[in-house]
Amino acid sequence: MSRDEETTRELLVELLGVFYGKGWVSGTGGGICGPADGGGLLLAPTGVHKERIQPDEFFTIDPADGRVLASPDDASLRPSECNAIFSMTARERGARSVVHSHALSAVLAGDLARVGDVDHVAIRDLEMLKGVRGLTNRDTHLVPVIRNTPRESELTEQLARVLDDPRFASSFAVVVADHGAYIWGDDVWEAKRHTEVYHFLFEAVVARRDRQKERT
Amino acid sequence: MSRDEETTRELLVELLGVFYGKGWVSGTGGGICGPADGGGLLLAPTGVHKERIQPDEFFTIDPADGRVLASPDDASLRPSECNAIFSMTARERGARSVVHSHALSAVLAGDLARVGDVDHVAIRDLEMLKGVRGLTNRDTHLVPVIRNTPRESELTEQLARVLDDPRFASSFAVVVADHGAYIWGDDVWEAKRHTEVYHFLFEAVVARRDRQKERT
Amino acid sequence: MSRDEETTRELLVELLGVFYGKGWVSGTGGGICGPADGGGLLLAPTGVHKERIQPDEFFTIDPADGRVLASPDDASLRPSECNAIFSMTARERGARSVVHSHALSAVLAGDLARVGDVDHVAIRDLEMLKGVRGLTNRDTHLVPVIRNTPRESELTEQLARVLDDPRFASSFAVVVADHGAYIWGDDVWEAKRHTEVYHFLFEAVVARRDRQKERT
Amino acid sequence: MSRDEETTRELLVELLGVFYGKGWVSGTGGGICGPADGGGLLLAPTGVHKERIQPDEFFTIDPADGRVLASPDDASLRPSECNAIFSMTARERGARSVVHSHALSAVLAGDLARVGDVDHVAIRDLEMLKGVRGLTNRDTHLVPVIRNTPRESELTEQLARVLDDPRFASSFAVVVADHGAYIWGDDVWEAKRHTEVYHFLFEAVVARRDRQKERT
Repeated sequence: MSRDEETTRELLVELLGVFYGKGWVSGTGGGICGPADGGGLLLAPTGVHKERIQPDEFFTIDPADGRVLASPDDASLRPSECNAIFSMTARERGARSVVHSHALSAVLAGDLARVGDVDHVAIRDLEMLKGVRGLTNRDTHLVPVIRNTPRESELTEQLARVLDDPRFASSFAVVVADHGAYIWGDDVWEAKRHTEVYHFLFEAVVARRDRQKERT
Repeated sequence: MSRDEETTRELLVELLGVFYGKGWVSGTGGGICGPADGGGLLLAPTGVHKERIQPDEFFTIDPADGRVLASPDDASLRPSECNAIFSMTARERGARSVVHSHALSAVLAGDLARVGDVDHVAIRDLEMLKGVRGLTNRDTHLVPVIRNTPRESELTEQLARVLDDPRFASSFAVVVADHGAYIWGDDVWEAKRHTEVYHFLFEAVVARRDRQKERT
Repeated sequence: MSRDEETTRELLVELLGVFYGKGWVSGTGGGICGPADGGGLLLAPTGVHKERIQPDEFFTIDPADGRVLASPDDASLRPSECNAIFSMTARERGARSVVHSHALSAVLAGDLARVGDVDHVAIRDLEMLKGVRGLTNRDTHLVPVIRNTPRESELTEQLARVLDDPRFASSFAVVVADHGAYIWGDDVWEAKRHTEVYHFLFEAVVARRDRQKERT
Repeated sequence: MSRDEETTRELLVELLGVFYGKGWVSGTGGGICGPADGGGLLLAPTGVHKERIQPDEFFTIDPADGRVLASPDDASLRPSECNAIFSMTARERGARSVVHSHALSAVLAGDLARVGDVDHVAIRDLEMLKGVRGLTNRDTHLVPVIRNTPRESELTEQLARVLDDPRFASSFAVVVADHGAYIWGDDVWEAKRHTEVYHFLFEAVVARRDRQKERT
């Protein structure tokens, strides 16, 4: 294993701890992936307490088809259900790192789409938009909201559609209603930045909607 | 003492620190139990600052009758008032670890039952339901809400009733109105997962009720 | 200096760090005192970042009259403006440790008194009331709310009145409108427990008032 | 480099960690500056995760014109866009340390100005006002709110105007609508105190506005 991959594994572990502290991956929910040696993706295991994952507990998957290329020594671990989603995001958007958040703010932002009977959350009038690669603070940024499905792997059909929708070409996030969000970047650092930025944006649109009368 | 019980004691201490940080066991409130050697339950002492309990300060009780099998060296400690509740949960549901939370979100979730004049909180349309063993995200999950009593040990009559109620067969939690919640699992890790999941669910139902007009 | 006082100094420092993390003593606001050798009170200095105070930076005051008995080596430090309040609480209620909180929840709880045009906050229907020495969860607990004054030392007249008011005989806290709260106990541990309990109670009454329609 | 500057660099790094924990500089947003040897200002780099900056990664700028006097060894780093703002604040107000916050509470406080169609937030009836140098708790304190601009450096024209406005002479903060706030002090410790105080004030005015009916 290269020193780069070792560093990545340690960083993924550290970020899961940070995100747990923020309430984004509690109750074993959520997940993360990052670049492995040779073009693969390091994938956290499923059903485990995310803030307690160790650097040697990641799977390596091939984003071309989600096939497991390498497994951790602990045979009781199984790859995260995020596999299909993470792989598709890697293929369609070139994401090398994806965070799956179970934050309440993402759920509440998704509720706004339901109320408006639209398929997205529109975010504008926020400097923090500049934290999303390619955006200015003058943009109205549309984040797609897809319906939840019984199994995480069944989200791929809707995901393919929104990743292909030109309205959402600038988004590095997809909200899953009643569930959370997938947020990605070109590398782990960009995925971290986007994760923090989108959670801020979710909190802001919910807080402003609550005070909507305040906004003329 | 087996290495397993040592590890359990250390884990219980660590989790009390995590839960204190989240505001679930502040002001000496709340508590936890976990599996002791020989089928007993390790029980935190009463009236102490829960985030400062030491591994050697747990009592061992017999869940068959709540009898104290072993006491910590510090003779000033007395077993938690949760004893009767934890023991009943162990007997009726096979719980090997129970968390008693004094979280405000549990109190506010209990208020929702009072408003609706029902004996439960109904939770649905949330992926996080899958964090409760046996549930899918399509379920409407009913968590029983019982009335508070002057003494914690007097909750057992109501507890026996709701643990026996087929509507609540899938619940690993009981909310006590004006008080908090008991949340359990087959082992400490499942109790931790359920504790985090149910607190997320409580926060979500309260947040969504506040925005009820948003939900058609 | 006795080992007891050394331990107390370290504990006061540690608690200021914990309370800072909770937002109760930010911006150099708030304070704490605890028992010194010989019946004095250890008093934090004024105008300093409370989470950065060192064990050797406390003053020792005589609660009989607030006179400074001993000063830290650092001659730039001055005793906290809480001196007169802490001393009076020690004399009138036998408090050996007092916390001065600048929490927003205390300010918002004080606002409730203004709205109701009363001189107190009434707290009931909460198990956490049992965390206040002498109370049951069936009590309606009245916490006095006094008006803020230009200088902290000018609060003593109102404080004397409410400490003498039989309606508030069971309270270990006084809310100062627009300001925060004083919360005390027989020793540092009880002051810590009461501090956590009252902040929970403040948050609960504010949260429930926001949802008042929910409470029939 | 003097021992003073070394200490300042370490303190700036520590404070960025504290502020990140509070959500004020997430997503690489926000920033800080402090006094360098020889009258310059230590300026954090742009586009980096603020809580991960190292003591040797600051630029030194000349506040007279924002010119870079010294750069960190890492040639990939560029000086923060706050440069022009920080320099102007240093020149016009003698600030030796400025914090740029991306807190949601600052954004929501700025929204209050828009609702009221005014160019400031008025803060009163709060003891915490005394945490701002020169204020009493009887003051009505006006914090200017300026419009956001596409680039941070373009804020200077508006900033010059409000720094020159006698209504805002007592303010150590400027809110930028939809963006955040700049908060300063004579040294890093005063900037820290003011930063914590103003965030408390922002949270308080927003919380009280939400409960406005409660305030007669």
